[in-house]
Amino acid sequence: MEKRDLLYEGKAKRVYTTDDKDIVMVSYKDDATAFNGIKKGTIHDKGKVNNEVSNKVMMYLEENAIPTHLVKQINERETLVKKVEIIPLEVIVRNKVAGSLAKKLGLEEGTILKRPILEFCYKKDELGDPFINVDHILAAELATEEEIEIIQKMARKINELLVGYFKNINIDLIDFKIEFGRTPDGQVILADEISPDTCRYWDATTGEKLDKDRFRRDMGNVEEAYLEVYNRIFA
Amino acid sequence: MEKRDLLYEGKAKRVYTTDDKDIVMVSYKDDATAFNGIKKGTIHDKGKVNNEVSNKVMMYLEENAIPTHLVKQINERETLVKKVEIIPLEVIVRNKVAGSLAKKLGLEEGTILKRPILEFCYKKDELGDPFINVDHILAAELATEEEIEIIQKMARKINELLVGYFKNINIDLIDFKIEFGRTPDGQVILADEISPDTCRYWDATTGEKLDKDRFRRDMGNVEEAYLEVYNRIFA
Ligand SMILES: Nc1ncnc2c1ncn2[C@@H]1O[C@H](COP(=O)(O)OP(=O)(O)OP(=O)(O)O)[C@@H](O)[C@H]1O
Ligand SMILES: Nc1ncnc2c1ncn2[C@@H]1O[C@H](COP(=O)(O)OP(=O)(O)OP(=O)(O)O)[C@@H](O)[C@H]1O
Ligand SMILES: [Mg+2]
Ligand SMILES: [Mg+2]
Repeated sequence: MEKRDLLYEGKAKRVYTTDDKDIVMVSYKDDATAFNGIKKGTIHDKGKVNNEVSNKVMMYLEENAIPTHLVKQINERETLVKKVEIIPLEVIVRNKVAGSLAKKLGLEEGTILKRPILEFCYKKDELGDPFINVDHILAAELATEEEIEIIQKMARKINELLVGYFKNINIDLIDFKIEFGRTPDGQVILADEISPDTCRYWDATTGEKLDKDRFRRDMGNVEEAYLEVYNRIFA
Repeated sequence: MEKRDLLYEGKAKRVYTTDDKDIVMVSYKDDATAFNGIKKGTIHDKGKVNNEVSNKVMMYLEENAIPTHLVKQINERETLVKKVEIIPLEVIVRNKVAGSLAKKLGLEEGTILKRPILEFCYKKDELGDPFINVDHILAAELATEEEIEIIQKMARKINELLVGYFKNINIDLIDFKIEFGRTPDGQVILADEISPDTCRYWDATTGEKLDKDRFRRDMGNVEEAYLEVYNRIFA
């Protein structure tokens, strides 16, 4: 299948139509942004790492009964996925305290959460992707009650699966952000990506950060961290 | 019963011990603050209005099977209440969009919410009383799952009752903040106050604001608005 028209360009990916109206091609860029687009940069080969890591992880989730948008990887940077109507929610799952949660609750980064925390943010750049609750989702009609329940269950299940998956390669999965979409027949499936851009990965032995926080916080060795995750997954 | 030692002084009230270890005396001040204490001022006779309005409203709620801390009004500014361990949550119920919700969701003030929205903020001045969700409450052990369920049910019931109560005096109850506490035997009851400081009241005919927003937004006629609410309730 060939890519045709650019459907939209985001900060990390371009999405193209294909000959099949139900399938789009996602093309991963090396562009990196943080703090709602204020910080900009490039991470060499990030597009390749994220494409291949995300596909590998989604394949693992599919094998474990999680429906995803993944259809087929085309090349290092490009993948065919089911076209969905993205539900405008960033679904965040946290196993340890980090980032905004540390500030919000006044807790130390790394504090273990006895039970994973699930958060919803309203995906809307103009509003700065605000943190919201289920009542807000219903009031703004971002998703139905039924969809919210499916998303909550799926997010917690995905977390359980990913914690195990990354533990196997000596990575501590601190938190991650996922997005869901509706297929034309109304099914809710996992979409977007799961990569070092959208997760916090800490080396389980040393605690070293292997994710986008190295870029956000100017820690250096950003490309090396992304490649390290890639290498552990494909070792 | 006499008041004895000052137990703590808040921005709007002082709390004193009494001869009875399970009962405290609340003394309402005219001091007004907004934006987490950044804006400071005085509203003449606010202490009297809030004391009497809050007691009258709590009596109405008691008659309708809502357990409250109210014991007995002592004078214009002072009231005996059951001493509770305050659950560190600001519980907000909204019927129409106003204030921070308008900014958060990019909606116009006054937009009707088909179903009331319930929000929790973590009562912690140093953190700026951040908006949180149920997972955060459980993680930070601010309340148990059972307590959260009781609070949610009571808050929605209180809203239904108050909407009707204020409609009777031609006031549109836009939103309000309440606090709950634990009695020594572990019962969850309504505490703190329900007053023009803690509610948004709009005249049902003209839409005129009759609450603390007049102070927050420098709209003038602040005392008059508080007195207007008082007069309608005690007419
Ligand atoms: N299967 C899919 N079908 C349709 N759109 C998708 C699919 N998967 C992801 N998208 C969307 O592709 C867009 C481009 O991705 P990218 O990550 O670059 O966006 P972004 O810059 O993060 O912007 P946004 O804030 O919208 O996510 C996003 O809006 C994402 O939600
Ligand atoms: N029945 C009660 N027993 C014990 N404390 C109470 C009771 N009712 C209210 N309080 C507490 O009394 C304190 C003083 O009230 P005030 O409204 O002045 O506080 P505040 O300045 O708003 O500070 P805070 O942010 O702690 O509410 C508050 O902490 C409030 O939660
Ligand atoms: Mg994105
Ligand atoms: Mg108070």
